[in-house]
Amino acid sequence: MFFASDNGGPAAPEILDAVLRANAGNAMPYGNDPIMDSVRRKIRDIFESPDAAVYLVATGTAANSLALASMVQPWQTVFCHRHAHIEEDECGAPEFFSGGAKLTLLDGENAKISPQSLKDALAFNAGNDVHHVQRGALSITTVNERAGVYSLQEIKALCDIAASNNIPVHMDGARFSNALVALGCSPAEMTWKAGVETLSFGGTKNGLMGVEAVVLFDPKRAWEFELRRKRAGHLFSKHRFLSAQMDAYLSDNLWLNLAAKANNAAARLAEGILKIKGAKLTHPVDANIVFASWPRKGHVAAHDAGAQYYIWPDGQSLDGPPDDMISARLVCNWATTDAEIDQFISTIS
Amino acid sequence: MFFASDNGGPAAPEILDAVLRANAGNAMPYGNDPIMDSVRRKIRDIFESPDAAVYLVATGTAANSLALASMVQPWQTVFCHRHAHIEEDECGAPEFFSGGAKLTLLDGENAKISPQSLKDALAFNAGNDVHHVQRGALSITTVNERAGVYSLQEIKALCDIAASNNIPVHMDGARFSNALVALGCSPAEMTWKAGVETLSFGGTKNGLMGVEAVVLFDPKRAWEFELRRKRAGHLFSKHRFLSAQMDAYLSDNLWLNLAAKANNAAARLAEGILKIKGAKLTHPVDANIVFASWPRKGHVAAHDAGAQYYIWPDGQSLDGPPDDMISARLVCNWATTDAEIDQFISTIS
Amino acid sequence: MFFASDNGGPAAPEILDAVLRANAGNAMPYGNDPIMDSVRRKIRDIFESPDAAVYLVATGTAANSLALASMVQPWQTVFCHRHAHIEEDECGAPEFFSGGAKLTLLDGENAKISPQSLKDALAFNAGNDVHHVQRGALSITTVNERAGVYSLQEIKALCDIAASNNIPVHMDGARFSNALVALGCSPAEMTWKAGVETLSFGGTKNGLMGVEAVVLFDPKRAWEFELRRKRAGHLFSKHRFLSAQMDAYLSDNLWLNLAAKANNAAARLAEGILKIKGAKLTHPVDANIVFASWPRKGHVAAHDAGAQYYIWPDGQSLDGPPDDMISARLVCNWATTDAEIDQFISTIS
Amino acid sequence: MFFASDNGGPAAPEILDAVLRANAGNAMPYGNDPIMDSVRRKIRDIFESPDAAVYLVATGTAANSLALASMVQPWQTVFCHRHAHIEEDECGAPEFFSGGAKLTLLDGENAKISPQSLKDALAFNAGNDVHHVQRGALSITTVNERAGVYSLQEIKALCDIAASNNIPVHMDGARFSNALVALGCSPAEMTWKAGVETLSFGGTKNGLMGVEAVVLFDPKRAWEFELRRKRAGHLFSKHRFLSAQMDAYLSDNLWLNLAAKANNAAARLAEGILKIKGAKLTHPVDANIVFASWPRKGHVAAHDAGAQYYIWPDGQSLDGPPDDMISARLVCNWATTDAEIDQFISTIS
Repeated sequence: MFFASDNGGPAAPEILDAVLRANAGNAMPYGNDPIMDSVRRKIRDIFESPDAAVYLVATGTAANSLALASMVQPWQTVFCHRHAHIEEDECGAPEFFSGGAKLTLLDGENAKISPQSLKDALAFNAGNDVHHVQRGALSITTVNERAGVYSLQEIKALCDIAASNNIPVHMDGARFSNALVALGCSPAEMTWKAGVETLSFGGTKNGLMGVEAVVLFDPKRAWEFELRRKRAGHLFSKHRFLSAQMDAYLSDNLWLNLAAKANNAAARLAEGILKIKGAKLTHPVDANIVFASWPRKGHVAAHDAGAQYYIWPDGQSLDGPPDDMISARLVCNWATTDAEIDQFISTIS
Repeated sequence: MFFASDNGGPAAPEILDAVLRANAGNAMPYGNDPIMDSVRRKIRDIFESPDAAVYLVATGTAANSLALASMVQPWQTVFCHRHAHIEEDECGAPEFFSGGAKLTLLDGENAKISPQSLKDALAFNAGNDVHHVQRGALSITTVNERAGVYSLQEIKALCDIAASNNIPVHMDGARFSNALVALGCSPAEMTWKAGVETLSFGGTKNGLMGVEAVVLFDPKRAWEFELRRKRAGHLFSKHRFLSAQMDAYLSDNLWLNLAAKANNAAARLAEGILKIKGAKLTHPVDANIVFASWPRKGHVAAHDAGAQYYIWPDGQSLDGPPDDMISARLVCNWATTDAEIDQFISTIS
Repeated sequence: MFFASDNGGPAAPEILDAVLRANAGNAMPYGNDPIMDSVRRKIRDIFESPDAAVYLVATGTAANSLALASMVQPWQTVFCHRHAHIEEDECGAPEFFSGGAKLTLLDGENAKISPQSLKDALAFNAGNDVHHVQRGALSITTVNERAGVYSLQEIKALCDIAASNNIPVHMDGARFSNALVALGCSPAEMTWKAGVETLSFGGTKNGLMGVEAVVLFDPKRAWEFELRRKRAGHLFSKHRFLSAQMDAYLSDNLWLNLAAKANNAAARLAEGILKIKGAKLTHPVDANIVFASWPRKGHVAAHDAGAQYYIWPDGQSLDGPPDDMISARLVCNWATTDAEIDQFISTIS
Repeated sequence: MFFASDNGGPAAPEILDAVLRANAGNAMPYGNDPIMDSVRRKIRDIFESPDAAVYLVATGTAANSLALASMVQPWQTVFCHRHAHIEEDECGAPEFFSGGAKLTLLDGENAKISPQSLKDALAFNAGNDVHHVQRGALSITTVNERAGVYSLQEIKALCDIAASNNIPVHMDGARFSNALVALGCSPAEMTWKAGVETLSFGGTKNGLMGVEAVVLFDPKRAWEFELRRKRAGHLFSKHRFLSAQMDAYLSDNLWLNLAAKANNAAARLAEGILKIKGAKLTHPVDANIVFASWPRKGHVAAHDAGAQYYIWPDGQSLDGPPDDMISARLVCNWATTDAEIDQFISTIS
């Protein structure tokens, strides 16, 4: 019963098979391996973006930070939700990679940026005053930190505001596949067709050992990106092992199938929880993450049974009246089984 | 016939086996996996350093830069050889990670820092003048970029100079295992017993997919190191896959056996080259790298046969008198076979 | 009728006289002039802090940024009010000088940080999680950007919270003298006795040409500060001209007399405005700044008469119904005359 | 007898007069004062560069570092002489302002970069390899740190090499006026006509209290420069005091007259020294700096008489055989008098 995070799950067997195959013989290092050519082709095809620059790194923080640093100057600011991963969970990585750019924190329900909040912040940073930091970029996350998936309309609305203010858009897609499956649209529709310039395209949380792609739909800063990646220690010598994972991921719809499994698991989990008396969802379940509350006694039982997940927010105690409601975050991954879910529901009910 | 670099070789089968085993089930992320506990214990044992702080990253540049950044302030300088990897091959990563520290370049035969060069540079940076950058740290590389391995006496001589000037010592051990096998001493003797405070302990070039340890023999800055690693995007969520590689590497003397194979291959390669009329070594072959020159016609034949290695230094042409001497760099790895070497010698002879 | 800012006023004649005197003959550069010795003694005496380290720079942004950079690490955050000068008016200077530290924005009426807002932010940044930026320092501004002066009790309350969370306190005292005169306490009471570790002690807005002192009541990082100042280009070669200004400023209570003039001018200005029908203060007038609203027709008249001040907040138009209320900011300086104020009141009434 | 440095000399009376005049009344801050308009016009006229962007800062380190940071990316390198001020005397300021760019040190007699040294360094940094830092800019200093003034031909030769390698050229002209007077050419010939893109145009060492101009002959990065200046705390609120100094400096050929006085003083000083038996110049005296050696007994006499100058290089003792040669650096400024020089010669003879 493991719902702590999708980064605690295993890699998919197809991924490990690909790594084993890639290990045969020698290969030129630093991304000059032939498998990377295949990855580049596949991503360009999948995103209908024949000129996109495509790079691999091993962590989501590296993907986000390198992407943002190539989009903003040190004296600019990145507009993002106050619960964005880049704000709360990367120990200041965007500031480090960008040379000290600022993050301007926006509001909105379910960790989705509200258009008004973005407009207000842009109005404040009008951008022609040397005393203020300047407008840099907009960063939106989907699936976001409160389980939310932006609709195509929501993405487009934010991108349009950004465009009319001449700032580029970054998408933190650490769980891009989960969001895409949830929307049922094309990868292009969810990104550059809506106005996204640079994408962190996650793999690690969806069955890879540790690979994220950065896709620059506008390749004008591709060389800068390569230099930044090297300079940050994120260019792998034995790059073929990254290439092989991403290549397998993008073959035979594996990436979509894995994401669908995780999303379906979350749906089943939410459905089960809602059957408990008094239980409710504390955020909508848009993809593979469930925020919900149920009586304390159910949490105590789960804890005793060794189930792993986070009480959310911090600071709610397992000691107290058994019928009080306690809220929690549960994350499903591709390997979460129906049996595991059902056992959990049975435990907490 | 692959001698381009040891980072072009495959991972050892024991490593891949360990990765497969580590994939079973779920695991807590970010280094909280139980395999990392085993890695920590093994490194502390091997280095006879029970309090050492031990961290894993995936690239040598990350290991070196994080280590150095935790040792120097932005207004200080790192003393290193002018052919050090940190100076020539990391696109300014030490400057990036440290917030703009300088590298002061030293001289010495075969890319080994001469004690006099270090003394002169320290005298120039006397360290009490606000106009100059301040003394920060000494960084020594072994096996270095010209195939050289420092003797224990050489390491100690440099560390003693550093100590008497109150600066700590970093060792870039991307090929630490190859150097250790060459010296036949203990890991402790080659490091903290000689005066090294922080070690980049490489694995990638010696049979791992991509893992380097950083060992802080003095753990006083361990927490700072953890924060710097996270902030630089080098803390892996699915950390167990790094742990598993390093754990297998340190089991059953695998790391030493792999290094010995590479070193022996280089010795055989050098011996074969020296049998060619006019051929000579352009640097001593201390470990697994061969710098040598032989007639141009031999290089042409190698090139025609598809052999991979670097003409070194750049700019020597394969067009010209067939008997002129052309120099090159050849690197062996654990998987280099006798047959491959013999075929190469036969080709170039 | 100049109320645009106190940095638009002239330097006091005593200051220029001191500069002229200092110009006689040669002087050792970089703060080694004898006048700096006098400055150091006077500041230590005035603040009853015999061990304080005292440095001069020429701008408030330099003073604040160098002070903060010497107090926080790049992976830490500075807690400050969301309307602090360091957040809104320095183009990201704290981020630049600190190597990318974050600013965590707090709330509170009249631009004073509320203790609860600080407590909440500290609770969120609990400080032992590698994924979050770490607690760095608290920065409080007095006189602040909305005319507010913290009482001694308010300063102490915030400093106590900081101390119990082990973070040091910086005071942005660009208008320190105005605040001190307003409180009528001793400089020590307003700073280190309340818990302030480092002070930006402004002079430019109060009659100097361009000098600010940074006072490190705890001198443990004095040498680091000197290196940071040099490295940032803020160590003056002809330092005697800074020394002379500050020395004259601190002689014969000049600094206090100038501040009292500015505060008194603001009181007179506020009193005059309040006599206008419908006029009101939009923030309390604690020192030398007035935030007030009065009918649009008064603003139009002031504009036509060439009066200089800022409509505040931005975006209120002078076109519209003449009796609508429009708010503004007016700043007095030591040279503001009663005649100028009375003329202004007469103009807008 | 003050020859320690030209930054130890006084400001010229015309400069102080201008400061006093500028103090009358109020003025808009941050360079929006009318005197700055005059400065801008004068510099554009003097340099025959009607589109040049012109900014003032207060220190040479600020001028150089802001200029360089606006010309190079963090992953690039600045080619400069190993004795350049930016390398030896700014505590790593270029690294700080640029976000960690490197300085590549070149050689050449009398601290002038030799064309061959520049060519060799450019060949090494070929610029298309992600592992190396990239070519950024060339920085040349005149008058340089060993008293040397580049001839127009020498400047042009270096700029041509830079241009053919697509890197811009910065000139550190902390003593620009002294060099210009020495060459007797036009300011345009010495700068943009020869290929210089950005100039640090010094005033402090030549009779100002503390002002340097940065002239961007190509204004494409003017707005970036303004943001960098603000962010670094180098935008002055009471900017009129900088404007006034520079405006007076450029009026009635004051800047040239002051420089001529300093140069003439150095010529007289050198002539006098050379009359001493055994004395010689250790570098050519191209402008206002003298490097010379004469017998130790002369230094002892000078020391006893309270003369101020630097024994150069460090480490030569005043104790020892009286007839041994000891070398020194002596710097003249606009206020150095013939009487002072003659007294010094008489003392050391």
